[in-house]
Amino acid sequence: MEIGATEGSARAGRAVTPRGGFATPCFMPVGTRGAVRELSSADLEGLGVEVVLGNTYHLMLRPGADVVRDLGGLHGFMDWDRHVLTDSGGYQVFSLDPKVDEDGATFRSTYDGSTHRLTPEGAVEVQEQLGADIVMTLDICPGLPAPEETVRAAAERTGRWADRGRAHFLARAPERAERGMEQAQFGIGQGGIDEQMRAASARRMADIGFDGYAIGGLSVGETRAQMLPALHAALGELPLDQPRYLMGVGDPASLVEAVGLGVDMFDCVLPTRHARHGTILTGAGRVNLRNARHARDQGPLDPHCPCPVCQRYSRGYLRHLLAVGEHTGARLVTLHNVAWTLGFVADMRSAIEAGRFAAFRAEALDVWGAPVGSGPAAP
Amino acid sequence: MEIGATEGSARAGRAVTPRGGFATPCFMPVGTRGAVRELSSADLEGLGVEVVLGNTYHLMLRPGADVVRDLGGLHGFMDWDRHVLTDSGGYQVFSLDPKVDEDGATFRSTYDGSTHRLTPEGAVEVQEQLGADIVMTLDICPGLPAPEETVRAAAERTGRWADRGRAHFLARAPERAERGMEQAQFGIGQGGIDEQMRAASARRMADIGFDGYAIGGLSVGETRAQMLPALHAALGELPLDQPRYLMGVGDPASLVEAVGLGVDMFDCVLPTRHARHGTILTGAGRVNLRNARHARDQGPLDPHCPCPVCQRYSRGYLRHLLAVGEHTGARLVTLHNVAWTLGFVADMRSAIEAGRFAAFRAEALDVWGAPVGSGPAAP
Repeated sequence: MEIGATEGSARAGRAVTPRGGFATPCFMPVGTRGAVRELSSADLEGLGVEVVLGNTYHLMLRPGADVVRDLGGLHGFMDWDRHVLTDSGGYQVFSLDPKVDEDGATFRSTYDGSTHRLTPEGAVEVQEQLGADIVMTLDICPGLPAPEETVRAAAERTGRWADRGRAHFLARAPERAERGMEQAQFGIGQGGIDEQMRAASARRMADIGFDGYAIGGLSVGETRAQMLPALHAALGELPLDQPRYLMGVGDPASLVEAVGLGVDMFDCVLPTRHARHGTILTGAGRVNLRNARHARDQGPLDPHCPCPVCQRYSRGYLRHLLAVGEHTGARLVTLHNVAWTLGFVADMRSAIEAGRFAAFRAEALDVWGAPVGSGPAAP
Repeated sequence: MEIGATEGSARAGRAVTPRGGFATPCFMPVGTRGAVRELSSADLEGLGVEVVLGNTYHLMLRPGADVVRDLGGLHGFMDWDRHVLTDSGGYQVFSLDPKVDEDGATFRSTYDGSTHRLTPEGAVEVQEQLGADIVMTLDICPGLPAPEETVRAAAERTGRWADRGRAHFLARAPERAERGMEQAQFGIGQGGIDEQMRAASARRMADIGFDGYAIGGLSVGETRAQMLPALHAALGELPLDQPRYLMGVGDPASLVEAVGLGVDMFDCVLPTRHARHGTILTGAGRVNLRNARHARDQGPLDPHCPCPVCQRYSRGYLRHLLAVGEHTGARLVTLHNVAWTLGFVADMRSAIEAGRFAAFRAEALDVWGAPVGSGPAAP
């Protein structure tokens, strides 16, 4: 991790990887099943995306990790030569109420009901077949609120699984090297919103030693006011010279707060999900494009947005496409929302480099500082 | 109409319009509701589309022709500076079993059940609001097979409506000119598969005098063997120096046969509809991409296709996207099928220019010469 500039705890720099590296802070769109919803890898290149996230859970079931491997790993499969990060599958598996024991988790496929097993070692191997540049350890993510004992047990087992996952990952390095394949591995800390548990879990990960560190299990039901102290506690235990990744967070207020605390990487389905529901992200806040007042609006989605959609199409046209269910509408609005989010993160980067991140944060919170997961309507 | 080359009745040239012109034979993708399914105007530009078709019926109901007018007509609405042709709405309206009298047709909206009226004069005015470069007269299109009397009555009323439509179109020319707007108008002949009725209806249109001539009401249930003589009879009555447009036809065998008889323009939803169902068009015939045998296929949809999808993505990847319902799959396959169809038509053009259309036709019929609407499976 090359840190180019800091302001308080916020950092702008470059995560260095076997593939080269990418600028941080970094927002990674989610390509759940081998494509970011509505977009192709050509679209992602056009938007300047540097890292795309793939969901191990979905890909191991459809088309199967072995099929992805045979088609060249996720890079060949998607024809994408920038970075890929895969999650471990844990988040999806644990949302399905699996049978868990100390060895791993047994779950049923949402596609066909068939039974599958994921262990810390298996998660390493599946992600090796998927060929990601950055792979994640298998963690246990309890939804919040949850009893303290549940959160503690999850964090502790997550720690033991991280140990096993790291050992297995390192043991397989020579075999990967033989095939000309190099991967980095991040550990995931848990601990709910309890600062002590968060710190302990992060410390445990740092003690094991990974190529980067993720904070998992946040933005899963708690308020932002509950999330930020827990995040802060975890970050305090992580080495400064390695990337820190806050999983599943992408609303602008949380992005700016987390960057302020020293987070480097994010992934979130929010920009793409919002788009499909007709919610557009703009410098003035969220806008419900389905509202009838946009029917004859000749203006762009966001007058300050340089994205290709804002350069060409009017709110009136895009609203029409959404209203009649013409899929081109969802696609164009998705392109805008992803471009807007990438631009927001790039602006944070520039602000840190220019020493004006504090002002940027204050302005962003003026617009976006509502509770996590919601956000103000633009005037 | 500039005719650059001929071979038998086949012609390659350029339709001249107020906007400039476009190469013929020409395939026009269908942008039913202001967008070709899955595609944007940027995509159409990239594919080299020269004319896009808009459906008056759909656009007059959603968002309303006045809204399209206020957003700059279809060109401004879609941000598309190449040609737009609008149909008259007749085809859709008559598929809804409307109340028809000599003056016009009253029908219910498929969107909200509200009642609307379309007359020959109204069709001119709606298409003026939509701002198309080429507008069509309101015709009556009976599905085939139909009793001779039904077909005859439809053709005769279509003739009277064409008279009224032409008169109204010409009467409004000064008003359009005042707004800097120039449109061309095509008449539509009917007559089912009866050669005499077809000839009479076409002659009637030629006598009225339009900027181009369409053959409507074919490919609506009859076989290709029934269609072609009727088409031939109609073409024989049309002036050679104006464009001839066969409506709603886009399967490769019919395209090559119709071009052989002297047709210049086509529109069809087939390439885009096929794509959404996983059927891809290739030089070797149709391929069902959903078939499991493509799961690990690293090859492109068509090894001879220069389209951006065939340059990047494998059959295995695209099949996966379709299988899991990831919309990017339908979009990419649509891009290919439209590109393939445009390429097929461009190849016909080149063959006519090179004096080898007869050979091209024979080869194409070897691959595609099955009954209308079907086609062979590729090996």
